[in-house]
Amino acid sequence: MTRTLGVLLFPDFEVLDVFGPLEVFGNLSVREHFRVLTVAETAGPVASAQVTRAVADHGLADCPHLDVLLVPGGLGTRREVENEALRRWLVARAADAEMVMSVCTGASLLARAGLLDGLRATTNKRTFDWVVTQGPRVQWVRKARWVDAGKFVTSSGVSAGTDMALAMMARLVDRSTAEQIARLMEWTWCRDPDDDPFARE
Amino acid sequence: MTRTLGVLLFPDFEVLDVFGPLEVFGNLSVREHFRVLTVAETAGPVASAQVTRAVADHGLADCPHLDVLLVPGGLGTRREVENEALRRWLVARAADAEMVMSVCTGASLLARAGLLDGLRATTNKRTFDWVVTQGPRVQWVRKARWVDAGKFVTSSGVSAGTDMALAMMARLVDRSTAEQIARLMEWTWCRDPDDDPFARE
Repeated sequence: MTRTLGVLLFPDFEVLDVFGPLEVFGNLSVREHFRVLTVAETAGPVASAQVTRAVADHGLADCPHLDVLLVPGGLGTRREVENEALRRWLVARAADAEMVMSVCTGASLLARAGLLDGLRATTNKRTFDWVVTQGPRVQWVRKARWVDAGKFVTSSGVSAGTDMALAMMARLVDRSTAEQIARLMEWTWCRDPDDDPFARE
Repeated sequence: MTRTLGVLLFPDFEVLDVFGPLEVFGNLSVREHFRVLTVAETAGPVASAQVTRAVADHGLADCPHLDVLLVPGGLGTRREVENEALRRWLVARAADAEMVMSVCTGASLLARAGLLDGLRATTNKRTFDWVVTQGPRVQWVRKARWVDAGKFVTSSGVSAGTDMALAMMARLVDRSTAEQIARLMEWTWCRDPDDDPFARE
């Protein structure tokens, strides 16, 4: 079974939020399991918060069906929470998807779209208080590397997204594949979603 | 002082080799210290080994002076070691640069260009034996997260490149800036270049 995994891009997205998980799901060894693509409001180059541009393969309107959707964070989320067309797209695509992941402040976009209402979720630590305002009915978890609410899986800041991605690889494919990818990446995979040394005590 | 840091792209580059260090050097908090750009044989989109495309801001011919050059690894290095125009460019740009870093199999390109002759260097573990053949006069170090030979700093596989990038941020700017960026990334920074759990014993 090949799943299509779409990564959302928007101006001022955080590069490691996108490319840490893509290093996992785009790995050559899982090409039979995942077709990876990027999607933005319109197809073409999108400038990251770290300047360098990535290319969106599709626009919102022409994006194929997504089995898995990954929403990164970054400074641009402050603007995108106000983007009604994007919110409608997220709601529609989440309804069709098997799994929706966010990294860092990407949770603000899911929360603002109402997708996390009543669910446990987390986000990054430095802007936690702002993200919370985007989803007053979300059960926000302040100390977590990632929070697994079943279909919706939200991670803390930046590098936590890659630990989450490996955990979801273990769920969607199998654990030995996830372990193998972590070794290829020489990534010290933190397997414990509650191990969060960056939470303020 | 603002340094220009150029990241080399080529077809089938490894995304985390590029975007881990860019998460560090492209951080908004060091915009006064680093101007970040990407460069490839020709400007425009370049497909990574993980499918997703990044945009090269410059071609080899129109690339501005680089104070710092970062060479990623990835499957594409197998082809690029044979690229004579790229080798000549690397030799010329390394001569002008203050610092040259490689991540993972990126060391193969520096080695093949003769830039690491007589120096200590490392690369990733899985393709170590192939990389070694590209630089028989290099003092290859099998167990290292990164090897600091002064101007040339080479890291082991993928995630080790980000630990190296943080260490070089500490050298080029200061340690507290590097610590702050690691916190923002929620990155558990391994500060010890000899801590390499991925080396075969």
